[in-house]
Amino acid sequence: MSALIVAATQMACSWDAAHNIETGEKLVREAAAKGAKLILLQELFETPYFCKDVDYKYMQLAAPVGENKAVQHFQSVARELGVVLPVSFYERENNALYNSLAMIDADGTMLGVYRKSHIPDGPGYHEKFYFNPGDTGFPVWETAAGKVGALVCWDQWFSEPARILALKGAEVIVYPTAIGSEPQDPTLQSKDHWQRTMQGHSAGNLVPVIASNRIGREVGEKAEITFYGASFITDVTGAKIAEAGTDETVITATLDVEANRRVRLNWGIFRDRRPDLYGELLSLDGKHRHASKP
Amino acid sequence: MSALIVAATQMACSWDAAHNIETGEKLVREAAAKGAKLILLQELFETPYFCKDVDYKYMQLAAPVGENKAVQHFQSVARELGVVLPVSFYERENNALYNSLAMIDADGTMLGVYRKSHIPDGPGYHEKFYFNPGDTGFPVWETAAGKVGALVCWDQWFSEPARILALKGAEVIVYPTAIGSEPQDPTLQSKDHWQRTMQGHSAGNLVPVIASNRIGREVGEKAEITFYGASFITDVTGAKIAEAGTDETVITATLDVEANRRVRLNWGIFRDRRPDLYGELLSLDGKHRHASKP
Repeated sequence: MSALIVAATQMACSWDAAHNIETGEKLVREAAAKGAKLILLQELFETPYFCKDVDYKYMQLAAPVGENKAVQHFQSVARELGVVLPVSFYERENNALYNSLAMIDADGTMLGVYRKSHIPDGPGYHEKFYFNPGDTGFPVWETAAGKVGALVCWDQWFSEPARILALKGAEVIVYPTAIGSEPQDPTLQSKDHWQRTMQGHSAGNLVPVIASNRIGREVGEKAEITFYGASFITDVTGAKIAEAGTDETVITATLDVEANRRVRLNWGIFRDRRPDLYGELLSLDGKHRHASKP
Repeated sequence: MSALIVAATQMACSWDAAHNIETGEKLVREAAAKGAKLILLQELFETPYFCKDVDYKYMQLAAPVGENKAVQHFQSVARELGVVLPVSFYERENNALYNSLAMIDADGTMLGVYRKSHIPDGPGYHEKFYFNPGDTGFPVWETAAGKVGALVCWDQWFSEPARILALKGAEVIVYPTAIGSEPQDPTLQSKDHWQRTMQGHSAGNLVPVIASNRIGREVGEKAEITFYGASFITDVTGAKIAEAGTDETVITATLDVEANRRVRLNWGIFRDRRPDLYGELLSLDGKHRHASKP
């Protein structure tokens, strides 16, 4: 068995960025001590989830990747522990703003940046105010923990990016996340729907997924959200093989990388696809084609 | 509430085609008596699942849609009961062979034919020997039970056709199926993986799915398969709201069509897609584009 131990962490975040980074590091060390080689931190963990409100001041939090404190900090943690660390951060490049992720390899090298492609917008989740839709496409990185693809939060609701990562050879897909209650409707509980959607990406692509979600109640100026945690890891059939509750924690799971590769080949779905019939995926409404045809 | 009752049936099939049609009709009548307006019969129910073996004689079973006995029979059943009946059959058109489905509306009209696009091939499931890959694309039909999309068995493992049907306005997706044990590996139990994959299509597209699967042990010349039933119906979040065991049965569920439409608009995923980034979906390997670009 070609065993790879992977981990997801989850934590609450305050306005004390240094403390959030410290908590994240504590959880990463705990995961590394359990043998994890790929450890996922949640989305935008340096601060509370500021998209609860619409306020220009929060745009000041964005910085170029080379100046982001969390990325810098976890490059040295990755190097020291020999672990792969995807780190979510708020990126500014000239006048553009992105909800980004830096893929940090086990030697501390930053392999590249993925910019969240699907940007939500609704009560308590005003992301279109803060972020440009990402322009990086969907990279798969060769890391010390194998071929890893990263998507960010709302991306997890879309079958297309997960499929593209699988086509490009991803052996695991990570989803740092911040999702919780819906301010406009306290009865709406999305947790199971959220898990099922990603379990579907995992099952349909025969690729394990790791989701790391925020916890805690955060009160903004106009909205409050209770983040539901429930971070989880799936096997190659989409079954949950590790799952967190709503507390600060680390979950780990062992993947058999070679066995998973065999399943992807043997099950036959990547042999039997019909790209000649998929043109309508490039439309928004099943009819008109998007201007930017490939 | 704009209630629509839908149903899935499941049964064992012998070489007595008339008897199989009779059993199917009995189950359809049972579902109609429970108020179902859309009733799904399983894949290729006129015969045993002949793809267990590779034998030219079974190609003789194929016929043009206008000559297929099950399609003709269930057109009159649909008209009598006022129910929508998607009917799976083995189609021959000139020298081409398809694993097809006729969509029969509640007045008995045949609205059109869908030809299975994704053709499996492996021990016990030698479908590439019997069927051309379908050439119809993925139609959505306006039926007396709303906008219905139909996919057939192996199609259910692919995110692309389900997404295309959702983009084209499908309000429910039906999957007639024949899946069971794997002759080459008795330990391989695909039932949960099979359900999770379709639950994912349902969750990610906010569209209920109905799957109808064969039951019974069938012994071929070189392979035997025990079909596992487990037909099921999901709500708009991919949760199972009805599920069968391994016996002959009818399952029904009530969908709130208007509420489901609201969920699809309000959740935001069809607003936030990025077709400009999806070009790689038209490749087989994430690199080279298929020759037939749209």
